[in-house]
Amino acid sequence: MSAPVTDRLVSLRRDLHRHPEPAWREFYTTHRLVEELRRIGVDDLAVGPEAYDPADRMAAPAKEDLERWVDRARERGADEELLETMAGGNTGVVAVLERGEGPSVGLRVDIDALFIEESTDESHLPAAEGFRSEYDESMHACGHDAHMTWGVAVLEAIKDSDFAGTFTVFFQPAEEVSGGGCPMAKSDYCADIDYFFAAHVGLDHPTGEVVAGIERPLAMCHVDATFEGTSAHAGKAPNEGDNAMQALGTAIQNTYAIPRHSDGMTRVNIGRAEGGTASNVVADEVNVLGEARGETTELMEYTKERLVDTLHTAAEMHGCTADVDVVSESPRADSDPELVDVVADAARGVDGVETVTPTADFGASEDATFLMERVQEEGGYAAYLIVGTDHPTSHHTSTFDVDERSLSIGVDVLTNAVLSVGGER
Amino acid sequence: MSAPVTDRLVSLRRDLHRHPEPAWREFYTTHRLVEELRRIGVDDLAVGPEAYDPADRMAAPAKEDLERWVDRARERGADEELLETMAGGNTGVVAVLERGEGPSVGLRVDIDALFIEESTDESHLPAAEGFRSEYDESMHACGHDAHMTWGVAVLEAIKDSDFAGTFTVFFQPAEEVSGGGCPMAKSDYCADIDYFFAAHVGLDHPTGEVVAGIERPLAMCHVDATFEGTSAHAGKAPNEGDNAMQALGTAIQNTYAIPRHSDGMTRVNIGRAEGGTASNVVADEVNVLGEARGETTELMEYTKERLVDTLHTAAEMHGCTADVDVVSESPRADSDPELVDVVADAARGVDGVETVTPTADFGASEDATFLMERVQEEGGYAAYLIVGTDHPTSHHTSTFDVDERSLSIGVDVLTNAVLSVGGER
Amino acid sequence: MSAPVTDRLVSLRRDLHRHPEPAWREFYTTHRLVEELRRIGVDDLAVGPEAYDPADRMAAPAKEDLERWVDRARERGADEELLETMAGGNTGVVAVLERGEGPSVGLRVDIDALFIEESTDESHLPAAEGFRSEYDESMHACGHDAHMTWGVAVLEAIKDSDFAGTFTVFFQPAEEVSGGGCPMAKSDYCADIDYFFAAHVGLDHPTGEVVAGIERPLAMCHVDATFEGTSAHAGKAPNEGDNAMQALGTAIQNTYAIPRHSDGMTRVNIGRAEGGTASNVVADEVNVLGEARGETTELMEYTKERLVDTLHTAAEMHGCTADVDVVSESPRADSDPELVDVVADAARGVDGVETVTPTADFGASEDATFLMERVQEEGGYAAYLIVGTDHPTSHHTSTFDVDERSLSIGVDVLTNAVLSVGGER
Amino acid sequence: MSAPVTDRLVSLRRDLHRHPEPAWREFYTTHRLVEELRRIGVDDLAVGPEAYDPADRMAAPAKEDLERWVDRARERGADEELLETMAGGNTGVVAVLERGEGPSVGLRVDIDALFIEESTDESHLPAAEGFRSEYDESMHACGHDAHMTWGVAVLEAIKDSDFAGTFTVFFQPAEEVSGGGCPMAKSDYCADIDYFFAAHVGLDHPTGEVVAGIERPLAMCHVDATFEGTSAHAGKAPNEGDNAMQALGTAIQNTYAIPRHSDGMTRVNIGRAEGGTASNVVADEVNVLGEARGETTELMEYTKERLVDTLHTAAEMHGCTADVDVVSESPRADSDPELVDVVADAARGVDGVETVTPTADFGASEDATFLMERVQEEGGYAAYLIVGTDHPTSHHTSTFDVDERSLSIGVDVLTNAVLSVGGER
Repeated sequence: MSAPVTDRLVSLRRDLHRHPEPAWREFYTTHRLVEELRRIGVDDLAVGPEAYDPADRMAAPAKEDLERWVDRARERGADEELLETMAGGNTGVVAVLERGEGPSVGLRVDIDALFIEESTDESHLPAAEGFRSEYDESMHACGHDAHMTWGVAVLEAIKDSDFAGTFTVFFQPAEEVSGGGCPMAKSDYCADIDYFFAAHVGLDHPTGEVVAGIERPLAMCHVDATFEGTSAHAGKAPNEGDNAMQALGTAIQNTYAIPRHSDGMTRVNIGRAEGGTASNVVADEVNVLGEARGETTELMEYTKERLVDTLHTAAEMHGCTADVDVVSESPRADSDPELVDVVADAARGVDGVETVTPTADFGASEDATFLMERVQEEGGYAAYLIVGTDHPTSHHTSTFDVDERSLSIGVDVLTNAVLSVGGER
Repeated sequence: MSAPVTDRLVSLRRDLHRHPEPAWREFYTTHRLVEELRRIGVDDLAVGPEAYDPADRMAAPAKEDLERWVDRARERGADEELLETMAGGNTGVVAVLERGEGPSVGLRVDIDALFIEESTDESHLPAAEGFRSEYDESMHACGHDAHMTWGVAVLEAIKDSDFAGTFTVFFQPAEEVSGGGCPMAKSDYCADIDYFFAAHVGLDHPTGEVVAGIERPLAMCHVDATFEGTSAHAGKAPNEGDNAMQALGTAIQNTYAIPRHSDGMTRVNIGRAEGGTASNVVADEVNVLGEARGETTELMEYTKERLVDTLHTAAEMHGCTADVDVVSESPRADSDPELVDVVADAARGVDGVETVTPTADFGASEDATFLMERVQEEGGYAAYLIVGTDHPTSHHTSTFDVDERSLSIGVDVLTNAVLSVGGER
Repeated sequence: MSAPVTDRLVSLRRDLHRHPEPAWREFYTTHRLVEELRRIGVDDLAVGPEAYDPADRMAAPAKEDLERWVDRARERGADEELLETMAGGNTGVVAVLERGEGPSVGLRVDIDALFIEESTDESHLPAAEGFRSEYDESMHACGHDAHMTWGVAVLEAIKDSDFAGTFTVFFQPAEEVSGGGCPMAKSDYCADIDYFFAAHVGLDHPTGEVVAGIERPLAMCHVDATFEGTSAHAGKAPNEGDNAMQALGTAIQNTYAIPRHSDGMTRVNIGRAEGGTASNVVADEVNVLGEARGETTELMEYTKERLVDTLHTAAEMHGCTADVDVVSESPRADSDPELVDVVADAARGVDGVETVTPTADFGASEDATFLMERVQEEGGYAAYLIVGTDHPTSHHTSTFDVDERSLSIGVDVLTNAVLSVGGER
Repeated sequence: MSAPVTDRLVSLRRDLHRHPEPAWREFYTTHRLVEELRRIGVDDLAVGPEAYDPADRMAAPAKEDLERWVDRARERGADEELLETMAGGNTGVVAVLERGEGPSVGLRVDIDALFIEESTDESHLPAAEGFRSEYDESMHACGHDAHMTWGVAVLEAIKDSDFAGTFTVFFQPAEEVSGGGCPMAKSDYCADIDYFFAAHVGLDHPTGEVVAGIERPLAMCHVDATFEGTSAHAGKAPNEGDNAMQALGTAIQNTYAIPRHSDGMTRVNIGRAEGGTASNVVADEVNVLGEARGETTELMEYTKERLVDTLHTAAEMHGCTADVDVVSESPRADSDPELVDVVADAARGVDGVETVTPTADFGASEDATFLMERVQEEGGYAAYLIVGTDHPTSHHTSTFDVDERSLSIGVDVLTNAVLSVGGER
């Protein structure tokens, strides 16, 4: 890959890194992607509701949470017409190249950021080099900025190639809340795909390693629960309260203690809690965000049921009620060995790739599994690959960063893979 | 009391009720009080830093939390010069009448509101009659709006009387966080007071009852603690996190379980908690606000120590650290029987008073005890009285309200009491 | 009191101390008391079922738990006929002196020991002087050995006096489990008593102090609960278990956290737990013994209800059931001021008494309240007094001991008090 | 296999089933095995200390716990000389056939029972047919009675065959506490073994299925911990106690909540707890038995460290200390594929075998891994196989039972396997 191209990749990635937008708030991000896609020129460009049915979205935020993100995007120059199209948080874009007869090939990259405040430490490269998040509350701490860069550059490379067939790139919003995979999978753009790729950067594999197909992504669900009790004066009448804070304490202690399962790995987490008003008031409302995962969809269901039951019983323990909402779920889906072989071959020829690992456990969850599941159900093949990157700290931490050498590696591996399965003109 | 006067009391109380400002944010409130005090005409009027040393304040909020309250006060017409004086949250005002030779008499009323969202239910009078809080996040849910009305009206009544001596009214901020009593007590205005009164409305006594002097206010402290752990991906690497949310769960469960004490009643509460970022991230930071109380200062100390230890050990349990800050404390101080008798006699003559209860347990805490303690240490007498009011629900709840008949009762009882101990011209 | 009498008191106390028998197992103890009572000669002597209806007993143990205690008593020479009478654990004895016309006066002393292993430390006097418990599992760690000595000696003193009327001494079993007070109170021996005394040694008052009448004994209940779950292999199938051990953990954490009450002091305790089989088996059964107390009977009821609910919900949390049995309860009853004055006067004349404290808080619970309540309901007067003793460590600890000087003090105070209210021949 | 032989297997298994003896208490069991081995005639018979160094034992019980088991064994006719040899709980036996030149082949069967009370339900075959455990407290609830029967019968079959080489059968005590594998592995009998087999019945595989070699047995450790606090009167002075029961509650809640690990499955259990004395005493001592497991030895170590830390911190939380003893550990060891193939072939020829499954996850732990590890380290091959059995309920439950058809199947599979690797005369 030429130096100017590489520079462009870095520049795009850093622009996206500076503007991290969480699930269903990717207004500037979508605008920026559309800008690139228009520059490249594609045959079909579907933004938000044009790409999926908004009713299929999961974990969509309340409207009032969206306003400041729209404002910020507007301030950064987002196209008003696009903002209009995305009204209500219908973000994301699908781009299609129609290149005559040939197989239908799909690539999915995710575009959302996390509610994590990015480190300001000088040892953190984005801080040192000036492309740290401009928003205090959010950060690209999982590498989706790199994923989007791949999506744009692969599309451009395929356009410049002799690929024959249809190539569709899904720039999917809301992966972190398992919210965008389902609507994308249900849309017509995901129908009748022959070969489908999804890709992730890093996940503890170093720069130069490619994992051709991951196994055992964890099935997952997100839960949003609110404990409702009765407030009271903590000094004057503690016995008159129904203490939502105690319900929370009981809930935390008992959810993490849900029994492990003989059939395989499970996960459970209470990742966020907020509630109560002041130190001298018995709390009457506490909200928590949690999740359950499992090595199989069944194990996730087991853990989810226990989690939901535990939240209800914890409430009951302290005279409260729990309003528990399972806001989103994603199934398990595995890579097809046939397509994994294609990816492995494609990776071997690429500059900078030192190791090709046929397969590895994923450990995390992914709502790309919704799209993989549909493709596989309709007779197509799917593979989820990892392009390694030297990352200084874990994903989802405030000092996460990607080694930008993995930008061009990812583009080349994916381009080769798409070309391998595509027809030739 | 004449109907016009009563109407003015109601009108002032409702204006204050509509503009509830929490601890150290009483910008509009102080402005409004100063407006009244200037109308009445007093001999000394000390606002904020003129009334106390800001360095003595406890539980003062961060500066960034104050801005929107200053803005709101400005929008409602608060005097710019006053806002300047109160910059940094130095709210409150002390008013003095100098009336020649005679004893020095003090009255303290508190002026802050709570972070409670007021009910919109039609059965809630302030909602039905249109004087519900204009701020979603705060409410006068403890009756301080009534207290301030008393303070203003008693001052006016004393000015119009033949009282001889010095009469000082402390409009004290930040009672709810035990933050304003200490600086007021340390100020010169609190020196050499012969007779000191503090008063509270309601506290479960009906309209028509006056409790001449309360006993056993609980000593109290407020604690602000932050658990710091290590964030990690909850699916990919739960074992790499040091889970501040689990520290919170362990802390909640064990603080409420601090052993009761043989020497008397204690209280403990975790009233607010907030932390973590998202459902799929192991939380690396959780903040809690808590408190400990005791029937005696010693019992409060016992509970405080256990609370602080418990927070630290809960952190340790999950590989986290706890930064625990005891932000404020108030001692126990009791009413002097001699002055209680004076109050009882003063109350008996008042219109609307049906029952005079010599004394009652308080149950709650109060940082008026700082002022009482100083007065008593310097040889003066102090009494803390309750003017009953029919309140539909408990203090510190979203549907708390006062029976406005208690406004004039309170003014008359306090005026009589002040006149009883004051000299005569 | 003469030295020989004092020696006899010491000797009897030490014999009883060496043979501590817990609730409803006081076989040797009753035998030993009957031996003394026969020596003295009384007009009526009712053992076990002759003194009360066994069906009224509370917290009676299972029959199989009694055997080894019967055997031990037999080994120590207990009368076979008495053992027969007490079959099934119907222990205790009531002794009556009929001395002609005059008031009916009652005295109640309790006779049971605790399941505490007595210290073998040389600094522990009973160990050093050779009268430590002969039974590893039990100990007179609350002073009932002293109480019994008082009961016997006061009876003897009254017999030798000019007392006129009826004098009844209740040697009550099973105080520690609140089990014996109720049947004694319901029996005919407790009918129509004019003056009633109960007494305790120590309770943190030194030798030489007498508290004439205690206030605020805590109302109390004992709870015996069993969590039933499902056992499973902890490695192979942890998810198939319903873990009674986790139910226990949740129960402990939440019972101690039952909210304090604004009306006064409460207590809650889980004092014993046992369950599960082996480290590698999910526990399917755990038994706990707990209690709730309150400054008033209402506060005890509040705490009891919360305790029972908490145990059930803790079981539910882990798919278990809880079988919760409230095995015994005792009410609150206060000393009558009139009789307290009598006691105070009686104490002032006694050798060795240095301080007479009119009244003090009790802090603990007592099922003598059942007898006090009946006496008071039928128009009589009751007082519960404390005879101080220098005790090295707290009641209910393995190194508790009484200062034997308090033996004769107690006898004299009680004898004087009985004579004060009795008629004269 | 002939009907008389089958009958003998059933008869021996039922005799052993009636006399289940837990870890290091297998006195009658060892006696009964020696009886059979002497009948068969072996070249070397090493009992207890003759077979291993008692100092290498893990999880050995206190001497006073052994007495009643020795007494019971004596009552059932155990040989006095053997009891002498086993004094102190050195149970178990190793039997060797020396059959000239040829490979050294080992077979290990475990012999201990569990502290589980066996069901008396008529639907439970041992109850219905009269061979239920004669001891209320223990039960062969894991199938070791079948294992021993295999060991005896395979030895007899090999003796009657043309096997050349050395054949050693390890009748290993204390598997359930991971206590006997280590000393057996360290003994000379385990030196230079070429082929080593261990076998288990059932584990959720039906009669007719043989799993030729299991994978992923969980590494494991057992922990025995005691919380020491300070006792106090729960009503009078709850604040003076350091509550070991609260330490237990905190420990249970937090051990089960030890974070899952990204590298694989872990397990944690608190299987037994006992402590405290009475409902009205703050508990000063509580003992717990727990365990940690992991898919790898490293994962077990991770969980063990967290478990030990959690126990210490739970103690600290309530002012107690924890004395934590890791009483035994077992590593992970996998079956060698080469030997698994031998087993699979051996099984295929056996009457009653319908399915041969090459390999399966084990899920549970096994201290046979100590012997496997030594054999493999010294260049030999090891396989751990499962002989399926229709068992009505899970292992380690009170209604576990084996289908006795699996007795002869096991004997035949193991005999064939031993003959396959042995030399021929």
